[in-house]
Amino acid sequence: MFVTIEGPEGSGKSSVTKEVVKLLEKDGETIVLTREPGGTPIAEEIRNVILDKKNTAMDPMTEALLYAASRRQHLVEKVWPLSKEGKIVISDRFLDSSLAYQGGARGLGIDKILSLNQYATDGFYPDLTLLFDLDPRIGLQRIAANNNREVNRLDLEKIDFHDNVRKTFLELAARFKDRYVVLDASKSFDEVVQDAYHAIKDRLAKCK
Amino acid sequence: MFVTIEGPEGSGKSSVTKEVVKLLEKDGETIVLTREPGGTPIAEEIRNVILDKKNTAMDPMTEALLYAASRRQHLVEKVWPLSKEGKIVISDRFLDSSLAYQGGARGLGIDKILSLNQYATDGFYPDLTLLFDLDPRIGLQRIAANNNREVNRLDLEKIDFHDNVRKTFLELAARFKDRYVVLDASKSFDEVVQDAYHAIKDRLAKCK
Repeated sequence: MFVTIEGPEGSGKSSVTKEVVKLLEKDGETIVLTREPGGTPIAEEIRNVILDKKNTAMDPMTEALLYAASRRQHLVEKVWPLSKEGKIVISDRFLDSSLAYQGGARGLGIDKILSLNQYATDGFYPDLTLLFDLDPRIGLQRIAANNNREVNRLDLEKIDFHDNVRKTFLELAARFKDRYVVLDASKSFDEVVQDAYHAIKDRLAKCK
Repeated sequence: MFVTIEGPEGSGKSSVTKEVVKLLEKDGETIVLTREPGGTPIAEEIRNVILDKKNTAMDPMTEALLYAASRRQHLVEKVWPLSKEGKIVISDRFLDSSLAYQGGARGLGIDKILSLNQYATDGFYPDLTLLFDLDPRIGLQRIAANNNREVNRLDLEKIDFHDNVRKTFLELAARFKDRYVVLDASKSFDEVVQDAYHAIKDRLAKCK
């Protein structure tokens, strides 16, 4: 099973997911937690180019192509081999981040980015996508209060951009409703952990 | 006018082109010489990922996506603005290298790589493509004898790979014969300089 975690920075998706992995492991599941962009040495090198704060001149389509390149390498070297071994692979961000950020917020169009990504994914989709839905104002406040994480190039975008990201994620949740579960990420940490855990358990029960 | 220079490493294309630029400048032309992958800071960063000798695990489609990303940035930041100013832009490698290396030699298919590159180029083609055609055995010998240039990941491929690159370039020259001029790069340096210079002058005369 392949699960993807989507939502804005500051939504708590990464720390919640770490807790959920612990709960699933207690249940005897074998989980591999990974992330995009990145997840393998080559993909991490590509990540560094994408998120480098000095690369403000980056064209939106260049960005979309780099995300697709990183995604391809991550799938080939990690997600596909581990899925074949029967492991549950959970990726912090995947295809839908490209659709929301480059397709929606940067205005390149969801369908254009979706068809570009066919080259990266060969039409492979997650079995389950958890959307950590949150007003970006709350997410940005949380980032500002969190000293453990450096601010990156994408955090520095204007609030309109982040509003568009959220709107597009919700559109994607409606379009791909079979694989999407929308979580209210404004709830307490423990509540969101429980919601995410149960969403994965429900899907596992259906897949088995 | 946008001119691209294609052919294998060791074909002398880069050093010949530098000489040709001098001749064209003597004629009063304003030339900008650039290269792919690279040509702008972001595109050069992408180049470093592509050509890094340690990245042997790179999937061919990841490679194709990275070349397309580098191409996009190079077009947006450099080729398109300079062309609009009326300058003659000459690029050492462009789209056809992706078609020959990833499409042909790596077996992804010319048409697949061509359609992927629509995302990078928006359908923009060179006005003239000079192919420095050479038996790869001669090219590789020249590289081995040349201490000024470090051997990179692509030089280390097997000879079959380089034979396929050559074959594909010649197929492309037949397919896109309106923009292609094939040069015999086994001739002496001065002869190839003259051939390349006259090919560009002829095309300039037609374009003006």
